Amino acid sequence: MDLINKVLERIKPSEEEHKRTIQLAKNVIDELKSLLDDIDAEPMLVGSVAKGTNLKNADVDIFIRYSPKYDRSTIEKKTIELGKKILKNPLVNYAEHPYVRGKFEDVDFEIVPCYRVEESNRKITSVDRTPFHTEFILKNLREWQRDEVRLLKQFLKGIGIYGAEARVEGFSGYLTELLVIKFGTFMDVLKNAQRWKRKTHISLDNTKKDFESPLIFIDPVDPNRNVASAVSIDNYSLLIFSSREFLKNPNEKFFFPGQYKEFDLRKIDERGTKILHIWMKRPQVVDDILFPQIRKFARYLSENLVEFSITKIGYYVDNNVHLIIESYYHDLPPLMVHEGPPVWSKNSEEFIKKWKGRAFNGPYIMNGKFFADIERRNRKIEDAIMKLISSGSIGKDLDKLKETIVFSRDPSTIDLKELSRVLDYRFPWEL
Amino acid sequence: MDLINKVLERIKPSEEEHKRTIQLAKNVIDELKSLLDDIDAEPMLVGSVAKGTNLKNADVDIFIRYSPKYDRSTIEKKTIELGKKILKNPLVNYAEHPYVRGKFEDVDFEIVPCYRVEESNRKITSVDRTPFHTEFILKNLREWQRDEVRLLKQFLKGIGIYGAEARVEGFSGYLTELLVIKFGTFMDVLKNAQRWKRKTHISLDNTKKDFESPLIFIDPVDPNRNVASAVSIDNYSLLIFSSREFLKNPNEKFFFPGQYKEFDLRKIDERGTKILHIWMKRPQVVDDILFPQIRKFARYLSENLVEFSITKIGYYVDNNVHLIIESYYHDLPPLMVHEGPPVWSKNSEEFIKKWKGRAFNGPYIMNGKFFADIERRNRKIEDAIMKLISSGSIGKDLDKLKETIVFSRDPSTIDLKELSRVLDYRFPWEL
Repeated sequence: MDLINKVLERIKPSEEEHKRTIQLAKNVIDELKSLLDDIDAEPMLVGSVAKGTNLKNADVDIFIRYSPKYDRSTIEKKTIELGKKILKNPLVNYAEHPYVRGKFEDVDFEIVPCYRVEESNRKITSVDRTPFHTEFILKNLREWQRDEVRLLKQFLKGIGIYGAEARVEGFSGYLTELLVIKFGTFMDVLKNAQRWKRKTHISLDNTKKDFESPLIFIDPVDPNRNVASAVSIDNYSLLIFSSREFLKNPNEKFFFPGQYKEFDLRKIDERGTKILHIWMKRPQVVDDILFPQIRKFARYLSENLVEFSITKIGYYVDNNVHLIIESYYHDLPPLMVHEGPPVWSKNSEEFIKKWKGRAFNGPYIMNGKFFADIERRNRKIEDAIMKLISSGSIGKDLDKLKETIVFSRDPSTIDLKELSRVLDYRFPWEL
Repeated sequence: MDLINKVLERIKPSEEEHKRTIQLAKNVIDELKSLLDDIDAEPMLVGSVAKGTNLKNADVDIFIRYSPKYDRSTIEKKTIELGKKILKNPLVNYAEHPYVRGKFEDVDFEIVPCYRVEESNRKITSVDRTPFHTEFILKNLREWQRDEVRLLKQFLKGIGIYGAEARVEGFSGYLTELLVIKFGTFMDVLKNAQRWKRKTHISLDNTKKDFESPLIFIDPVDPNRNVASAVSIDNYSLLIFSSREFLKNPNEKFFFPGQYKEFDLRKIDERGTKILHIWMKRPQVVDDILFPQIRKFARYLSENLVEFSITKIGYYVDNNVHLIIESYYHDLPPLMVHEGPPVWSKNSEEFIKKWKGRAFNGPYIMNGKFFADIERRNRKIEDAIMKLISSGSIGKDLDKLKETIVFSRDPSTIDLKELSRVLDYRFPWEL
């Protein structure tokens, strides 16, 4: 297929880039080796470069495998020290444990500490598994399939679901490689994916184990692990649908989508809905910690603001964390029907005492329970949200910055491209 | 208790009234006997007058017990013919079967056909059981307890739950008598009722059989029947609560409540809600047929108008059937979030074809399903109701008159006392 070749040309590293990357990786490893000196540890190239499945300008992942005799903080400190010595503009990131990102010449490197473990399933930390993954793929992915992996990666990137990190909740590189090993080619993966139902179990050796996720791919190097555990229901669904659409109408747009245009605010009048923009300072934590909190926050609001008839909640992050809430209403009427205890319950006396004479109406009886029509405390959506924030947690790090929350009912304060994504969603290949 | 004597004085027929009623009943029976001639049937006095538990100015119930050899239409025709001959201003009512109401001198009589059955539980029609009930009460209710029954009847009347007919969904005379037989006195019934929970099983001989109703009183003359089957959950609850309140603060108001005042329409602004008044011609059917239909209609609306945030539905009947609906909104925004099929379902193609380009936004994917933000068809509550009425049944007899439906958003078209009952409910003893 012409399309496939055209895409490959754009995404596959040239022979020259490839050779140079390998050479630079070697240099980094050599430097690390000499600096590690008599420490019982060896640096190794892992990840997509090691496996030959890298896209152009991929990060190079170097893991330092330490003897388990060292404790965690020792290997972390040592790795940071070495990384800072070798890489330019080094940045320490904190994931499961800290690692160093930086440039070696003009190429991005990551130097990550892990433990040398004998068997892959005697897990110490989850990154300890990575060398086994690299080894497994090198053994089981045929050379001609490397381009198939690249195509699948770019397809997933194009539809916005490549990466297992919390920001994306999508498909990791390793999962992509396993899918190609399982089904053969990029097209075969899509042909299979288009037929996936509510839940899909995959393994290379017919191991079957259930997990909560919609997609389950048993890790061949650790049968107790689901490689696809990060994949959210929405991203899983999107792969099913985009596979179907791509196979009907193969198209470069799936790999290289366009961008959202700015939202035309006049469309809000047509919709007849209200927009609330909430923002607060972005906590100084990594995305893997931040995004689950934002999602929890959004879910907490949408579950507890039902009376305002929420139609959409979206979010985006820059120096601030932004929430976009579309709802039917910003203000509720004074009256609220307040449900009390059953007539035969002990607490009913208390309910009557509390509301008698203080309610618009009642207490009265309906279906065996007392009710009263009382005055609503928080009629404005902003007040209702502040009440929710003060009475429940919105996540450890967001909580600390809740004093910085700002509300605006004026949608023009929102990044209008982000507003398009929320109110005028298009599938990436339609952009 | 002084209160009890004061109440009895107002509700108990005088010796003179009593004697006269019995005499008139005798006269009616004698006339019926002579008119029945060689028909195999005998008239008999039943009901509260027969049992000596009647309130002042009670109807006198005369049943004509026919031999089972006659078919239904024969005994009905004969009874109507005789009733019309004997009673002044005779009116034929249609309940389970037709009967005649009318005056004999200045007293209200009902003449009702039934079958002579050998055992009470060999049921032919449900009124056939009535003579057995009369017999049972005469045998088992002590004479001094008759006033206790009268007090309980008046109490139930006062709080609006006396009568098993569909309009009331309350306590029949027979149930009232059985409660006094079971618990002893009026006060004992209340002392028991105040402690009733979600469900109450009562019988005179410890028979236990379950029924759907909240209150179950096994009929001593037919253990397969629940005498309290008509009692609604709200009326059951009201008896529990009013017993509690009466025992704390015994008061004539429980027996003789006041009336609702006209609703002050300015209070609607305070509540911040919208009132919709719907009315249609009253179908020419008896209350026992009409009221279940009205309730079904009201329930159908309240279940299907959720988006308008219904806070109350009430109804009343005069020459028209009136519904009063209080809600937060009369008009909804144009946009509606329309839920489609799961991404992996066969119908999803169809959903996409249908809404692509026709929706404000979408189709998009959420939690594995397609959704689209589409334009709402019925934004006005009146349109939504007309849609519901045309797509579902609101009851056989209401259906026939649905062309006569009128809507008004102006609450001043409502009977303002009825509006008070709906929006400013008070317990009867507080009126």
